[in-house]
Amino acid sequence: MKALRVKAGHVEIEDVAKPKADGEAIVRVIKSGICNTDLEIARGYAAFEGTIGHEFVGIVDQAPNASDLIGKRVVGEINAGCGKCRLCLACDQRHCPNRTVLGIHGRDGTHAEFLKLPAANLLEVPEVISDVEAVFVEPLAAAYGISEQVEITRDTRVAVIGDGKLGILCARSLSGLSGDINLVGKHRNKLDLAEKYGNVTGVMLDEAGEFGRTFDIVIEASGSESGFSTALGLVRPRGKVVLKSTFHGAPTWNATKVVVDEITVVGSRCGRFAPALELLSTGAVEVEDLVSDEYALANGVAAMEWAAERGILKVLLSM
Amino acid sequence: MKALRVKAGHVEIEDVAKPKADGEAIVRVIKSGICNTDLEIARGYAAFEGTIGHEFVGIVDQAPNASDLIGKRVVGEINAGCGKCRLCLACDQRHCPNRTVLGIHGRDGTHAEFLKLPAANLLEVPEVISDVEAVFVEPLAAAYGISEQVEITRDTRVAVIGDGKLGILCARSLSGLSGDINLVGKHRNKLDLAEKYGNVTGVMLDEAGEFGRTFDIVIEASGSESGFSTALGLVRPRGKVVLKSTFHGAPTWNATKVVVDEITVVGSRCGRFAPALELLSTGAVEVEDLVSDEYALANGVAAMEWAAERGILKVLLSM
Repeated sequence: MKALRVKAGHVEIEDVAKPKADGEAIVRVIKSGICNTDLEIARGYAAFEGTIGHEFVGIVDQAPNASDLIGKRVVGEINAGCGKCRLCLACDQRHCPNRTVLGIHGRDGTHAEFLKLPAANLLEVPEVISDVEAVFVEPLAAAYGISEQVEITRDTRVAVIGDGKLGILCARSLSGLSGDINLVGKHRNKLDLAEKYGNVTGVMLDEAGEFGRTFDIVIEASGSESGFSTALGLVRPRGKVVLKSTFHGAPTWNATKVVVDEITVVGSRCGRFAPALELLSTGAVEVEDLVSDEYALANGVAAMEWAAERGILKVLLSM
Repeated sequence: MKALRVKAGHVEIEDVAKPKADGEAIVRVIKSGICNTDLEIARGYAAFEGTIGHEFVGIVDQAPNASDLIGKRVVGEINAGCGKCRLCLACDQRHCPNRTVLGIHGRDGTHAEFLKLPAANLLEVPEVISDVEAVFVEPLAAAYGISEQVEITRDTRVAVIGDGKLGILCARSLSGLSGDINLVGKHRNKLDLAEKYGNVTGVMLDEAGEFGRTFDIVIEASGSESGFSTALGLVRPRGKVVLKSTFHGAPTWNATKVVVDEITVVGSRCGRFAPALELLSTGAVEVEDLVSDEYALANGVAAMEWAAERGILKVLLSM
């Protein structure tokens, strides 16, 4: 089967063997989505070699211990724990120290004709959700997962930094909770796009300073090193900064400001899939307008190059 | 009157005018304590010039709007807000953007024969608390204030990094809440001292790695740049790191680890005085053994030099 793989610092389409179940489920991939993390892995982040990709929708092909899943359309949680450690036993396989992560760590990913995941990681997708929407379940879960880490109510004043896919998903998904969601970015066209759905206010970065330090919660979703210091400039004393992006290297930070103003910084990575499926089922969050392009898997290398271009939002692969 | 003042990068005893009440209270200082922040201010941190010091016990000399306080033995909260802004009106003068801070920002401090503070900042000291103990109310409040920011219960596994005064106060004060308090430091003699009271386990820094990442809460109280990365090495995934020390400059940090392991970082500065007075009144926390020396105010410059020596804990000034 074809797979988009990273090897020795470059990306290529390879012909590889179809994965063997070995007690897990095999899924025939319908579509997958290219995430910024894929682009970073291709640049060497996470030192991963193999098939990349972790956003997908597919049909279950084999499921030795869960035959009722066969033929079902599914999405899948990306962390697979060892099942034996203290964290796994506490149902937190997302932080199992021996975990594998789909297309990121120790496990081939989604940009392939077939993938393999434990059956327990799979969730059936309701009919009302399209294939394209289903590919967004993973990033939408990550965005909406913020609401399980910090309390957001109707009056919570929120700024999201970064007008890329992740920032827009954070803003749109959280706009159901707070009536005061402000997306801060550098691109007027992306801010306009973000404002089309939900109740999101777009703010140009160079005008954000006018608000002063008035935000209860600031979500850093730009992935740029300056994003954290922008966040510290907007968050109120005793407010919270949520770090949603990973960074290359070890950025500097104004730790004294964090102490003196008693800021809380919350690292945030994945989220549960069930609430994201609910948001898509009910139509509470619109995602299809965030797709810039769709490529056939065979053209995956070109798709990766296009996804890295400035101004491009989600690029999909279809199998 | 005599005062220990910082001016143009050095410390000296000066003769200055006794402060005028101007609607605030005047306190005759009995004793004051030298904090690491004083040493940092003398090195140029906070760009403060004037009388330093913010830990004290004294007798109220004048109190134009609170005459019942006159003659009372008091300690005082160090932040004085503008009284008009949104934060002050929400009773958070500690974070008022226009606040002055005793001996730190815009307001002369405690290492003097008299000081001035709003009467509302003063709390009477119960008789059962000695003068020496009362000087510890401010740092003890800062240490115990952690428990109002993060939940600590009997089973919470806590590591405190730094075996200086602040680290020991954190460990001792929180040992009434958790039965698993571990103080991590470089000095066996200080760890032994810490273990004398409360239920604190001393751990040498080079042996702390053996615990692995098992702590629910790690409190960084060493003030060294490496302290934060030590904390990240000890905190469990989804655990909390409390930053209790200010740092010079802008240290680097492993932001990716914070995101991937979903760590929460909590900046923590001051605490309420009332719980600290309670801890001292009931004898729950012992502090007098943390005093290394006491100097007359006139010898304040020598006291500052001694306080900066390795291995020295609290140095007091008496007026």
